[in-house]
Amino acid sequence: MATTWTRRHILSLADFVSDEYNIILQSAASFREVLSRRTKKVPALQGQVVANLFFEPSTRTRSSFELAAKRLSADVLNFSPGTSSLTKGETILDTAKTYLAMGADIMVIRHQHAGVPYMIAQEMDRLKTGVRVLNAGDGQHQHPSQALLDLFTMCSILDPENLRLESLKGKKIAIVGDILHSRVARSNIYSLTTAGAEVHLAGPPTLVPKLFLGLIDDSKPGKLFVHWDVEPALENADFVMTLRIQKERMTEHFFPSLREYHRRYGITRSRLKLAQENVKILHPGPVNRGVEISSDLMDDPELSLIPQQVTNGVAVRMAILYLLGNLKTD
Amino acid sequence: MATTWTRRHILSLADFVSDEYNIILQSAASFREVLSRRTKKVPALQGQVVANLFFEPSTRTRSSFELAAKRLSADVLNFSPGTSSLTKGETILDTAKTYLAMGADIMVIRHQHAGVPYMIAQEMDRLKTGVRVLNAGDGQHQHPSQALLDLFTMCSILDPENLRLESLKGKKIAIVGDILHSRVARSNIYSLTTAGAEVHLAGPPTLVPKLFLGLIDDSKPGKLFVHWDVEPALENADFVMTLRIQKERMTEHFFPSLREYHRRYGITRSRLKLAQENVKILHPGPVNRGVEISSDLMDDPELSLIPQQVTNGVAVRMAILYLLGNLKTD
Amino acid sequence: MATTWTRRHILSLADFVSDEYNIILQSAASFREVLSRRTKKVPALQGQVVANLFFEPSTRTRSSFELAAKRLSADVLNFSPGTSSLTKGETILDTAKTYLAMGADIMVIRHQHAGVPYMIAQEMDRLKTGVRVLNAGDGQHQHPSQALLDLFTMCSILDPENLRLESLKGKKIAIVGDILHSRVARSNIYSLTTAGAEVHLAGPPTLVPKLFLGLIDDSKPGKLFVHWDVEPALENADFVMTLRIQKERMTEHFFPSLREYHRRYGITRSRLKLAQENVKILHPGPVNRGVEISSDLMDDPELSLIPQQVTNGVAVRMAILYLLGNLKTD
Repeated sequence: MATTWTRRHILSLADFVSDEYNIILQSAASFREVLSRRTKKVPALQGQVVANLFFEPSTRTRSSFELAAKRLSADVLNFSPGTSSLTKGETILDTAKTYLAMGADIMVIRHQHAGVPYMIAQEMDRLKTGVRVLNAGDGQHQHPSQALLDLFTMCSILDPENLRLESLKGKKIAIVGDILHSRVARSNIYSLTTAGAEVHLAGPPTLVPKLFLGLIDDSKPGKLFVHWDVEPALENADFVMTLRIQKERMTEHFFPSLREYHRRYGITRSRLKLAQENVKILHPGPVNRGVEISSDLMDDPELSLIPQQVTNGVAVRMAILYLLGNLKTD
Repeated sequence: MATTWTRRHILSLADFVSDEYNIILQSAASFREVLSRRTKKVPALQGQVVANLFFEPSTRTRSSFELAAKRLSADVLNFSPGTSSLTKGETILDTAKTYLAMGADIMVIRHQHAGVPYMIAQEMDRLKTGVRVLNAGDGQHQHPSQALLDLFTMCSILDPENLRLESLKGKKIAIVGDILHSRVARSNIYSLTTAGAEVHLAGPPTLVPKLFLGLIDDSKPGKLFVHWDVEPALENADFVMTLRIQKERMTEHFFPSLREYHRRYGITRSRLKLAQENVKILHPGPVNRGVEISSDLMDDPELSLIPQQVTNGVAVRMAILYLLGNLKTD
Repeated sequence: MATTWTRRHILSLADFVSDEYNIILQSAASFREVLSRRTKKVPALQGQVVANLFFEPSTRTRSSFELAAKRLSADVLNFSPGTSSLTKGETILDTAKTYLAMGADIMVIRHQHAGVPYMIAQEMDRLKTGVRVLNAGDGQHQHPSQALLDLFTMCSILDPENLRLESLKGKKIAIVGDILHSRVARSNIYSLTTAGAEVHLAGPPTLVPKLFLGLIDDSKPGKLFVHWDVEPALENADFVMTLRIQKERMTEHFFPSLREYHRRYGITRSRLKLAQENVKILHPGPVNRGVEISSDLMDDPELSLIPQQVTNGVAVRMAILYLLGNLKTD
């Protein structure tokens, strides 16, 4: 691999190129190996400070980033919005600059509004701070580390000895559920079509608008399809990625009931017969058992990649923290 | 000591045997010595991950486990139910499996419902994960680490040079207060009767039902008594263990008022004259001063073992984390 | 520097002497240098436990103390009042004694009521515990570490190569805003008048009562003035220290509106022309942009010392934790 890592911030996968995906895949593969040792720690980011600025609360993603940072021996500062200066009238940028001044080297940012990580990254660059920014989920916009761990998990299945983007070429991946509100789906659409996969979005018309087809252009080798029934998406699929249904969407009239949703779009063993024989299921979690996916499928280790996704999440986040943390900054 | 530690989970003290208590006492004694050094850290669990899953909030017990884990050089993940995926519909088992997938080696679990730590331990075993589970308090059922630190504290008084369960044989221990709702009392009843002590429960009939006598059978060398007055329990007692009275119990009509409770069951200097001359008082904390115990007794270092309980709590938790963490798992 | 550090607790700056300020300034200067290295950690407090007892919530100050403690390699215990035993009826002193018994070496205490850190320090001394107490803000009374970082920041500007209290002699410092409710102002008045500076308080009469003049006596080489207009305070000022206006003060009728406050007392570029040409602005944060200070001034790196204050805050807190932590205790 001749290329080296040059990107300062990871904010979106929209303009990621193959080389970048492959560097992350290979770096994460070596950290995955570290995680299987008894002593799971390396001194790669010793003395560096990772600030977790989670304006939107999260246990799962924050814990994953925190553990990844600790295993690289970084110091972690956790920001909790409840007790923060934001409630005292401070702007988001001023909060970020406070953590900058305290010595943060990397900022991991989650916010309920799209664009906040960009805004902070721009300001950090404008001030020539050298701080690197990682988008850990912004509104309904992007969640790059989730799509990267999904990518890693699928590539690990396809060719465990040699993780590379190319192994997804020509594969069919169904993404089922609430695409409209999903930052996970948007990030995955970019990575998977860059890999040359066929991505089939499926769900109720209210949650899977046709305009998603405009998300990618002809420069991507992959293809994107929209279905309002789940069956054509599942047919011969290599991977089925299910998305969380949020209950509040029901009261917002995006779909009539959870039971109705499961009846029409839930992944069940019988529906899965349409897919490839060795099909695998992914879900970003937390799962509503019996809604997005039937409970027995979720617990079937032959079918469900959900636990691997969580484990790989730590390895992938170690990789991206490591790549950003070791970037030459000026 | 020929025996070695073999138990994978610590969920209840109901079936603990003398050897197990003695291994913990001796291991905790050596960690107690580490805590008196200026540098209070050992690398025993370096690189291992301890997940504190406190579904019921707690500062005291969580801090004690966290400090114990850090002093063994483990990485600690704290789960806070407020901001968690549980509110998004995830099951408890799926939350535990997420921490498993992130790499947790030991799970320390507190939950407001009895049995949750069991359920998680069973699932971890069923999946052959090798994860070890520690019950840090489940409903009104068990709180093993509290009873173990109480045991350690009493044995330290009886024979500081040689900590062993046997030193409690024939001693009289009064447990006073809200036995009915107390997981601390239930765990202590098992450990103390296994040691061959005489355990005297005392409190209002609403809070000390006779059916507690059925908690142990003839296999235990100790004896268990129930009293609805405090005086017969205190008479010639070697140790008096007071339990927290929760104010909400008053509105539930278990007793008429805090003042009335103190008048009839509160431990005072005059009442304590009934006990052995060198009697000592324990309390799991937090204390309602002037309710369970008069304020001056609590501050009398000749009588109160409360600070030692907290200090020993860290040593005992280091011991059990260490014993579980170094278990050969397959 | 012949003198060595002897003070056990830092509770107030009322009786601090020049030597003490100078020891802190020089010690912080060396930690400031550590913070500019890639590996920002020293093993000075390895194995010691710093307990952050923040009864009043805080992100900024708590994070600063936490990072300072971690960079000295201490173990940090965070106490969060929301989930604590305080809600279960435990007294503050009993909470502190619990952390003492767990092994806390240094307690950093913030409380909404004046005097709480004193009360805890007294009790720790009475019990001959050797624990050292740091006041991280008590009510409207004192906030020593904030005034020390302000001092460090101003001395760094005046003579970066040789930080000493004396460099502030004869300088004019304006403190503008809500002096009445400000623990920051009270602590700064002591340090700055000890340094021999001229301190000019300015704000509405409701927020700057004349009785502040009684805060210092003739033993201090500096001078203290009160102004109800901002202009005489700004005239020829070397430093302008602005204080946060809390919105709830408006509803309490201390001033008519935020706009009105800004019109009469806000620091703007035109008003600043009254000051020395090389005047610098400080603010303890979080800032209400456009209220205490106009937004463009705050972002002007030639004028605003706000980011340096945050950075220096970590260095100053490392210094005081280090000085207290290495005190010989008996």
